[in-house]
Amino acid sequence: MLGHFLKPEYEELIQKKDWETLRVAFEEIDPPDIAEILEDLPPEDSGVIFRILPREKASLAFEYLPVDQQAELVGTLTSDQLVGILNEMAPDDRTRLFEELPAEVTKRALATLKPEELRVARQLLGYPEDTAGRYMTPEYLTVKPTMTAAEAIEHVRSRGKGVETLNVLYVVDDHGTLVADVRLGEVVMASPEKTVAEIPSRQLVSLQATAPREEVIATFEKYDRSALPVTDTRGVLLGIITIDDVLDVAEAKATEDIQRLGGMEALEAPYMDIGFLGMVKKRGGWLSVLLVGEMLTTTAMGYFEAEIARAVVLALFIPLIISSGGNSGSQATSLIIRALAVRELELKDWWRVAGREVRNGAGLGALLAVIGFLRIYFWPSREKLYGAHYGLIALTVGLSLFGVVLFGVLVGSMLPFALRRMGFDPATASAPFVATLVDVSGVLIYFTLASLLLKGTLL
Amino acid sequence: MLGHFLKPEYEELIQKKDWETLRVAFEEIDPPDIAEILEDLPPEDSGVIFRILPREKASLAFEYLPVDQQAELVGTLTSDQLVGILNEMAPDDRTRLFEELPAEVTKRALATLKPEELRVARQLLGYPEDTAGRYMTPEYLTVKPTMTAAEAIEHVRSRGKGVETLNVLYVVDDHGTLVADVRLGEVVMASPEKTVAEIPSRQLVSLQATAPREEVIATFEKYDRSALPVTDTRGVLLGIITIDDVLDVAEAKATEDIQRLGGMEALEAPYMDIGFLGMVKKRGGWLSVLLVGEMLTTTAMGYFEAEIARAVVLALFIPLIISSGGNSGSQATSLIIRALAVRELELKDWWRVAGREVRNGAGLGALLAVIGFLRIYFWPSREKLYGAHYGLIALTVGLSLFGVVLFGVLVGSMLPFALRRMGFDPATASAPFVATLVDVSGVLIYFTLASLLLKGTLL
Repeated sequence: MLGHFLKPEYEELIQKKDWETLRVAFEEIDPPDIAEILEDLPPEDSGVIFRILPREKASLAFEYLPVDQQAELVGTLTSDQLVGILNEMAPDDRTRLFEELPAEVTKRALATLKPEELRVARQLLGYPEDTAGRYMTPEYLTVKPTMTAAEAIEHVRSRGKGVETLNVLYVVDDHGTLVADVRLGEVVMASPEKTVAEIPSRQLVSLQATAPREEVIATFEKYDRSALPVTDTRGVLLGIITIDDVLDVAEAKATEDIQRLGGMEALEAPYMDIGFLGMVKKRGGWLSVLLVGEMLTTTAMGYFEAEIARAVVLALFIPLIISSGGNSGSQATSLIIRALAVRELELKDWWRVAGREVRNGAGLGALLAVIGFLRIYFWPSREKLYGAHYGLIALTVGLSLFGVVLFGVLVGSMLPFALRRMGFDPATASAPFVATLVDVSGVLIYFTLASLLLKGTLL
Repeated sequence: MLGHFLKPEYEELIQKKDWETLRVAFEEIDPPDIAEILEDLPPEDSGVIFRILPREKASLAFEYLPVDQQAELVGTLTSDQLVGILNEMAPDDRTRLFEELPAEVTKRALATLKPEELRVARQLLGYPEDTAGRYMTPEYLTVKPTMTAAEAIEHVRSRGKGVETLNVLYVVDDHGTLVADVRLGEVVMASPEKTVAEIPSRQLVSLQATAPREEVIATFEKYDRSALPVTDTRGVLLGIITIDDVLDVAEAKATEDIQRLGGMEALEAPYMDIGFLGMVKKRGGWLSVLLVGEMLTTTAMGYFEAEIARAVVLALFIPLIISSGGNSGSQATSLIIRALAVRELELKDWWRVAGREVRNGAGLGALLAVIGFLRIYFWPSREKLYGAHYGLIALTVGLSLFGVVLFGVLVGSMLPFALRRMGFDPATASAPFVATLVDVSGVLIYFTLASLLLKGTLL
């Protein structure tokens, strides 16, 4: 895939600064693969390589780079190069690049755009982050409903050069209102004298420019289209979103959700691109908050210090009980957050989910309670390990497991709904956050039950 | 979007069994929306509705249903209906349906296919699950490199009816080997007398039929294509994969990963479709395993029972220490699993990641150690709560936090690599699994440090 050389050989040539050999070698390589090579290089080196590439190839390779690396590269380019690249970028990709750049660089970069490109970039930038407006491209072709198929094809022939997608033609009336979309394939197959309005078209599906990311993904998933038109509230066509961008958006969103569910801030860059301090910042924040939260368990247990002193055996089961609560809460929260993200569940479903999770939690709690009880009650050296009252201890642990699992499942499943209700992203309810919440309650449930059940025997 | 009625009105009509009004109402509704209505109905009702729909509309709506519901519906249909629907389904969707059906039903269903469709279905079924072969459709058009643009367009006009994608034409030589792909738009724009070989085409990118799901997604993400051809090892064209299917696959994979990361089996169906027993089975399995694993902490703490009896205050910090280890492990494992899933990292990167995570873990550990130390050392009622040796306790807790976080980060980041090395899916290393592993070690680290540091004072 990488032309004549293997990756290590390129790295060697770069180290030797043998630019001439590299220039010749790169002639054989396609832009996505060039981008892949550039990705692994420090910005100084990729800047030099950029300068030895023919302008058009450089622009193409640039578009395939991750947006953070594009932003880095921009600083190493001459003004001329920057103009060339920016003017040739697809508008949606350019918008994403501008978002990454510091405001100063954005202004300088915007100033280098041709006037008509500038208008487009500004327009795209007007929509809030993570909405349909940010993903759209104005590179598509429109046709009038009164055009014949032959005229529509002539239109494609004369105007199609450089347009991002020609697979679908958008039918607009004289006011710019979107009335239908027809696939180019259908136009080609239609009799030349038929009008565009007569060509068979699928159900018209469109997105509002303010539609959030989740709706964009869900709509593409539901209708299986390669592109969808974006309109304003009056139905005027503003741009289109192509599905290849949606795939990127969906994958980025899943990555963010997984990272936040894992109890950290979303990295927003590849793992290897984040340095030590950045990583400690993204991960340390939540870990510190959770540690402070977990100190509540210390406080809670402080109230039961006398009980622990009288029956040290009780302490042995603390990790088991609180982690079972944490595990069941992590499960429930992961499940519900994803179901909300892919729109399997909506806010209004919270009550039905609560009903189901009470049953599920009780079922899971009973299962774990039985296992916990049996493990203690039938353990070979039970009397030696847990004393004469091992039966009561087994009962205490079993009941605590039931309570803590039921509680964990309820907290884990309801917290994402509560967060969405309050306007936050449900993924903020990370698994470790739920686990920590449940830990404190686990300690309280366990020692309260122990106080009740072991009174007069161990306590 | 739903024609004349709102959803509750349909439900009412269904309850009243007013099929005639429904039949008329459904004429106005498009197949994806019919599918959405059907999704919420019990199989008996959706079976009846299916029978009142015109055959073609029924087939279209069927394709938009989730595969598990398709499987359910199949049982309620007459043989005639089944034949109609199966013959009209896109082959890749049909393959997915067959996978869901019990073997007996699959055989019966396969028997109802037209011979040429059967060949296609069998062929698609020959590839392992979650490989490119399973997602491909044979519905595309091929052209010869020697055809002129005009001939290619005539070919589309005469053969394009019902083909899933006409956006790209696949250029094959006389042996069926794929040599290029050209976009229909480029063919339309080319001079009619130019040959297909002369029409500008992009870099040829293809997938092997045995390519795993992750590679399919990553390739689509890298090249931004709406469809990619699939070949055998000799380069012979077998079928194509369309990006709308890849979006579904990517979303399904992310859902699976999130569920497994949350410590459960992948549900493989929407949340609301899984009953009580199914849910307890999917979630209870791992919870039970983790409970049994967590019992090791009980055993480990058993060895330190004498220490706890002498210094009960030590017990108060157990939840704090083990959960900090668990949290840092969950973070690291979520991060690495996702990076492996989206191919940001590969197996060979384990050593570099280990190096980075030693530093990250030490940094995070130091941060938490300082917070933990300060919280105890400067707490207002420290002497009353933790006794005269609160300084030594603060030191023990701080150092334990450092050790347990470093250990948690290392286990959490390396386990996914180890699982992939052994041929398992890295997502099996769920966050709760890592947390449980780290809990046991946390107990050992804490009490070992306590024995060393508090010898002669508290112990």
